[in-house]
Amino acid sequence: MTAWPAAVLVREVGPRDGLQDEQPLPVADRVALIEACVATGVRAIEAVAFVSPTKVPAMDGAEAVMAGLDRRVDVVYSALVPNRRGAERAVAAGMDEVEVVVSASETHNQRNLACSVADSLVGAHGIADLARTTGIAVSAVVGTAFGCPFEGEVAPERVGQLAGHLVDAGAGVITFGDTTGMATPRRVHDLLDALERVGMGPDRIGLHFHDSRGLAMANVVTALDRGITRFDSGVGGLGGCPTAPGSAGNVATEDLVHMLDDMGIATGIDLGATIDAARLASRLVGHDLPGAVLRAGPRTRREAQ
Amino acid sequence: MTAWPAAVLVREVGPRDGLQDEQPLPVADRVALIEACVATGVRAIEAVAFVSPTKVPAMDGAEAVMAGLDRRVDVVYSALVPNRRGAERAVAAGMDEVEVVVSASETHNQRNLACSVADSLVGAHGIADLARTTGIAVSAVVGTAFGCPFEGEVAPERVGQLAGHLVDAGAGVITFGDTTGMATPRRVHDLLDALERVGMGPDRIGLHFHDSRGLAMANVVTALDRGITRFDSGVGGLGGCPTAPGSAGNVATEDLVHMLDDMGIATGIDLGATIDAARLASRLVGHDLPGAVLRAGPRTRREAQ
Repeated sequence: MTAWPAAVLVREVGPRDGLQDEQPLPVADRVALIEACVATGVRAIEAVAFVSPTKVPAMDGAEAVMAGLDRRVDVVYSALVPNRRGAERAVAAGMDEVEVVVSASETHNQRNLACSVADSLVGAHGIADLARTTGIAVSAVVGTAFGCPFEGEVAPERVGQLAGHLVDAGAGVITFGDTTGMATPRRVHDLLDALERVGMGPDRIGLHFHDSRGLAMANVVTALDRGITRFDSGVGGLGGCPTAPGSAGNVATEDLVHMLDDMGIATGIDLGATIDAARLASRLVGHDLPGAVLRAGPRTRREAQ
Repeated sequence: MTAWPAAVLVREVGPRDGLQDEQPLPVADRVALIEACVATGVRAIEAVAFVSPTKVPAMDGAEAVMAGLDRRVDVVYSALVPNRRGAERAVAAGMDEVEVVVSASETHNQRNLACSVADSLVGAHGIADLARTTGIAVSAVVGTAFGCPFEGEVAPERVGQLAGHLVDAGAGVITFGDTTGMATPRRVHDLLDALERVGMGPDRIGLHFHDSRGLAMANVVTALDRGITRFDSGVGGLGGCPTAPGSAGNVATEDLVHMLDDMGIATGIDLGATIDAARLASRLVGHDLPGAVLRAGPRTRREAQ
């Protein structure tokens, strides 16, 4: 039997990554979804993004969302920020953490951030400096870390190099994003091997999988086998990437918690409450969501005899 | 990096397990689906079941389906047989292999076969004797091997014991069926540990997963890590179990082949042809199927820039 980690940090990204591709929701609905997620026991939540409302209308009003929350001191509320302007807004809104973002492929970075990878790295340094002076945490997301839908394969060595630059810039944890669901168990091993070679241990690594090709949970298990303890997920399997066609939702939080529970890996998250939050998310966005446990119920569910 | 097997036998079960829960298809459509699967390179296919047409209307006409095929000598065509009568029909129809079936839980066995587990085992001996005298192969399926939707947990030791009885009866390979999608990576390890303890090595073990809780591919990866080399799957993720409410389809053949290809594990199956077969299956049953790669395409697909 593999020695799995005793505990895992599940970061809920439904309110940001999950909602960004949906029709914009009223601020009150976004607040309600975040509060429902926090009520499950989640202790890290990607709540908002400080981005251009013309580019991502669903993320408009981040300040109002944050102001509407009954903030808890034991929860890390993070925001994705694409640039210095976003970081300034995040600081003003009192975020606990900002996430800088850069893609491992030039084409996706251009589509997503309208600049080169090199320019994004320079920007990341500026954001990190700003965050440091204001005392808030910085993490980083490397997009298309398992492949790019435009360019194809992305060398794990390139991803490792990029991660090194982001650590140098001051990012505490680097989340490697499978933006369009191109990761596979083999690619997870390959990337973790490459990160090991540049001296990046499991404690600095977060993973973020989309389920486009049915492999999100298989990738999580592969990473657990390698000692990774930070995973992003979205309630109900909300999500997708607007600048990456064909991308499916995030791994569903309830599916992830359901599996981790069965593995005896602590998350601090209540499965029943997570299914409730997924139901709420589905109601708010007005359509079915792909989460499997949301539909089938947990494996402990019994049929009437 | 884990040492994965060099090659895996994928047994296509869509034409039987996949179709049994659907509205009955004309014989010609069932023949067309089997031929499309065989054309992908699949070398083992669960083509029909010799069961009561009142109990499983979609499996009526198994003899006509088999007579309609352009049989290949390098493909093993198998049939599920619930009893001696079914085995006699299978022999008469010239099957290469019969599969006896027994559930690991009494309640599911009663629902599925209307008899006790002990009586099913006696029946299995009779079927195996018949097959032996006619020179056709016998395999066995243990249903609810990872849990029963009526009774709950099923002890791996009980499953191991049952497998031992089926080997004694003459079954060459035992397929452990996750009838309603209750398997998890932990349960896969637990069962394989229990089978190891009764001396059953990977060469005698097949695994059959349903994706009710999003874990089918994660379970496959866990089993590959343990050296298992036989997996059932259904094109498009067809499937479900009529006597087990809440059960989702089989792991999709195209999703499985897509992942195995990426892992460098040989199957002899062509992914593109498998996606074509899944499209055909969807057209024949008249509704969308859940296979992820059927929808998103393989990870090598490129978006226009």
